Amino acid sequence: MALKTLSAKAAAALDKELMSTGAFSIDQLMELAGLSVSQVIYRVHPLDKGSRVLVACGPGNNGGDGLVAARHLRHYGYQPTIYYPKRSKNELYQRLAKQLEDLEVPFVEDFSSAVKSTDHIVDAIFGFSFSGEVREPFPAVIKALEETNIPVTSVDAPSSWNIEDGPPKSGLGSSFMPDFLVSLTAPKPLVKHFKGRHFVGGRFVSPSIAKKYDFEVPKYEGLDQIVEISPNGQKL
Amino acid sequence: MALKTLSAKAAAALDKELMSTGAFSIDQLMELAGLSVSQVIYRVHPLDKGSRVLVACGPGNNGGDGLVAARHLRHYGYQPTIYYPKRSKNELYQRLAKQLEDLEVPFVEDFSSAVKSTDHIVDAIFGFSFSGEVREPFPAVIKALEETNIPVTSVDAPSSWNIEDGPPKSGLGSSFMPDFLVSLTAPKPLVKHFKGRHFVGGRFVSPSIAKKYDFEVPKYEGLDQIVEISPNGQKL
Repeated sequence: MALKTLSAKAAAALDKELMSTGAFSIDQLMELAGLSVSQVIYRVHPLDKGSRVLVACGPGNNGGDGLVAARHLRHYGYQPTIYYPKRSKNELYQRLAKQLEDLEVPFVEDFSSAVKSTDHIVDAIFGFSFSGEVREPFPAVIKALEETNIPVTSVDAPSSWNIEDGPPKSGLGSSFMPDFLVSLTAPKPLVKHFKGRHFVGGRFVSPSIAKKYDFEVPKYEGLDQIVEISPNGQKL
Repeated sequence: MALKTLSAKAAAALDKELMSTGAFSIDQLMELAGLSVSQVIYRVHPLDKGSRVLVACGPGNNGGDGLVAARHLRHYGYQPTIYYPKRSKNELYQRLAKQLEDLEVPFVEDFSSAVKSTDHIVDAIFGFSFSGEVREPFPAVIKALEETNIPVTSVDAPSSWNIEDGPPKSGLGSSFMPDFLVSLTAPKPLVKHFKGRHFVGGRFVSPSIAKKYDFEVPKYEGLDQIVEISPNGQKL
């Protein structure tokens, strides 16, 4: 059975629908998405593996999910560090950053140094709306993610990958393979190229919305906001 | 050691501070508060005790927490029913109600009938800003809560209780003792009169804010958004 995935275009339409007829605010959706990401980190990298988590945040919604995840991780007892070089002027992201500052979570400027003193990396740089070129200052970050031996969890998409086609054929990002991936609401077509452990998060989609967008709400257990599925989609 | 509690006045100031210098939106705080409530229900009333949960929502923030909790409970597999007789015109509450309607969660008009066909009741009628008289149509609801044998979980305060002084000395509410209580952010002074199982929820308070308001952030475990403490406050 082929995995049902959500194209970049469908994912954008779903987001728009959740926030219009679905009546969710972006604050709510981002809180729940970031909570899912934090639960994946807790699952794949429990505190006894080392509490230092470097969260690389891009300028858009993917970065916002990373900021929320970092806050929850801080409350779980982790020591997150944030790399957030292109801060959005959007009020929501400014508030999410302030919430981290109030928890004394450090923001760092130099990603390649930060990579050397962390136990886990969260790639919250680009999400399903990424296409085209990796802009400055992110090429060096993607390169560091390709080269590091530290485990990496990507949020929604391995950054630099094309949402439909997966990793670039050559050059920057072509050898980037994160260890873990959290697909938010539903996997994107790129997952057919993904080889690590794969989770779905975002336990807020109604069955009727899922049906309309032709994907399945995965079977979450208990209170979990995440569920592990096979790298390419089936439930484990 | 006397339990540190938060007076009604201090709780209102804390809420205001979280949403100003704390940079939280009410959407975010309500999502996390409602999530806490849903986790308490899952803990004290697991699905095998019966999936029907009647959520009584008041017109303000306490009711909003109940609406969010009901949505999470629906996703966990419960069958919530909502009693929400005084719907707020506030846009946030309207959106929270719409999210439930999209999950086909029924809203009922007749509380005393609904009580007869449920397995658990959530009292999300009045919170820390309650004072004075119980207004229509809630006196009959409080009376039903006093008389029912179905277990009741109250959100932040047993409805009709005075936040500082506890249950009314006589008349309506004087014999209302919910089985479970979820104190949000910190217990209120009324807990000295409470005799059931007591939880604290709302894992978003920074140590600096807690210090300023002279209470302690409880020691949450793992991913939990709640922690059980003794009826009057000590950690179990």
